[in-house]
Amino acid sequence: MTVPIDDRGLLLGDGLFETVLFKQGKAILWDRHMARLARGCEQLGLPGPNPDTLELDAAMAVETAGLSNGRAAVRVTWSGGRGLDRPEACEPFVVVSAAPAPAPLTPAALITSAVRRNAGSPAGRLKTLSYLDNVLARREARAGGADEALMLSTEGHLACAAAANLFWIAGDRLHTPSLDCGVLDGILRGVVLATMAVREVEAGPEALAQAQAVFLTNSLIGLRPVASVDGRPCGDHPLLDQLRAELADIT
Amino acid sequence: MTVPIDDRGLLLGDGLFETVLFKQGKAILWDRHMARLARGCEQLGLPGPNPDTLELDAAMAVETAGLSNGRAAVRVTWSGGRGLDRPEACEPFVVVSAAPAPAPLTPAALITSAVRRNAGSPAGRLKTLSYLDNVLARREARAGGADEALMLSTEGHLACAAAANLFWIAGDRLHTPSLDCGVLDGILRGVVLATMAVREVEAGPEALAQAQAVFLTNSLIGLRPVASVDGRPCGDHPLLDQLRAELADIT
Repeated sequence: MTVPIDDRGLLLGDGLFETVLFKQGKAILWDRHMARLARGCEQLGLPGPNPDTLELDAAMAVETAGLSNGRAAVRVTWSGGRGLDRPEACEPFVVVSAAPAPAPLTPAALITSAVRRNAGSPAGRLKTLSYLDNVLARREARAGGADEALMLSTEGHLACAAAANLFWIAGDRLHTPSLDCGVLDGILRGVVLATMAVREVEAGPEALAQAQAVFLTNSLIGLRPVASVDGRPCGDHPLLDQLRAELADIT
Repeated sequence: MTVPIDDRGLLLGDGLFETVLFKQGKAILWDRHMARLARGCEQLGLPGPNPDTLELDAAMAVETAGLSNGRAAVRVTWSGGRGLDRPEACEPFVVVSAAPAPAPLTPAALITSAVRRNAGSPAGRLKTLSYLDNVLARREARAGGADEALMLSTEGHLACAAAANLFWIAGDRLHTPSLDCGVLDGILRGVVLATMAVREVEAGPEALAQAQAVFLTNSLIGLRPVASVDGRPCGDHPLLDQLRAELADIT
């Protein structure tokens, strides 16, 4: 399958995407993913998705890929139509594909990236096709022998990982960077906030050095403990185990 | 013509592009465009282009589009290969297309965008496929009745327009934001710097209020005077006329 050559997603990164976990052929947190996609379309000025049609497409992609009996990652790519100037009535180009999803991963070693998250653009909070900063941060982390990149905002606050949200436990309480720090509005981040009391904060990187435990979230990896940040080992905490147990069905 | 569905330019904005002016079938400043593309590829870790092959492709695109006797805009899109993880030996997908190029435009009305240029990412200086911040800024400007957006850096310094570099004249001297302000390393910007004495500075937006004249540059529009910034009219200056005369052949 191919994409038109004047697709604005390709030419300008003008579009959005979602990666949804499927377990045994069933979509996890589908409504939350579609709600975020609709919010993003509104902010970019693109027509919104039809969640029902998309869910059928996604289920078919999972089945066609032979992934109905395990964990599958469905990617929905929603690009901003054709042409260099976005037409008035633009028709997004939609791609739905399925791939095997990683099993829950071992704890992650993080290193702090030199690439900052743009806290001065609405796109920083959206899952857009202009994903290059994340690509560069991840590349830097891998080159440094780490699993993931810790990204700070342009203002120097903790933001997120290249492809996950960041949480830490301090004083026996959960903390996560506020969305104002150029942080992607992650689906599993939202679920954690709805499940337990979490402080959304603007904090510098020193907060992690003082934390009792650090972990990452995203829809595909679930809750992933962080083993170390820039070589400094991180601890464990019963709150994290409790959260994993509560979210076992959706991770 | 179409693009593979797992193209990293589409999925992740992982790639670069160039827009080159052709006049009467002849490429303008081709070597500078190819040098910038090669530098960008090096920074992103992508294989570099073969300028000679690309020039043949570009000339053919201009001819096929029937634009050999006028002004044509050639876009070279250089995407980061296929697959979600960039393969070791990645083979970029290349698209070359030609379209009519605008004649030199009337003076531009600018309004300052709420979208900031990321001074904390190397991608801010590159012409990447992750172009959404520029799309959003331009959209904001048009919605506000202006021609172009004035973008500040995340640190609050003057940066550039959504699709052009920014210059101003103060004290009878040329000024432009330094590349550290999240500014695209524009080809015509480089030519102006090589043609006249220009101060590369970090300056706040108040610098424009005190300027004698303001103008924009890019390879397709050439030198474009700015008529107003946020409704405040801008003046004219003989230095601008002198520069236009000197660069007439390449704009």
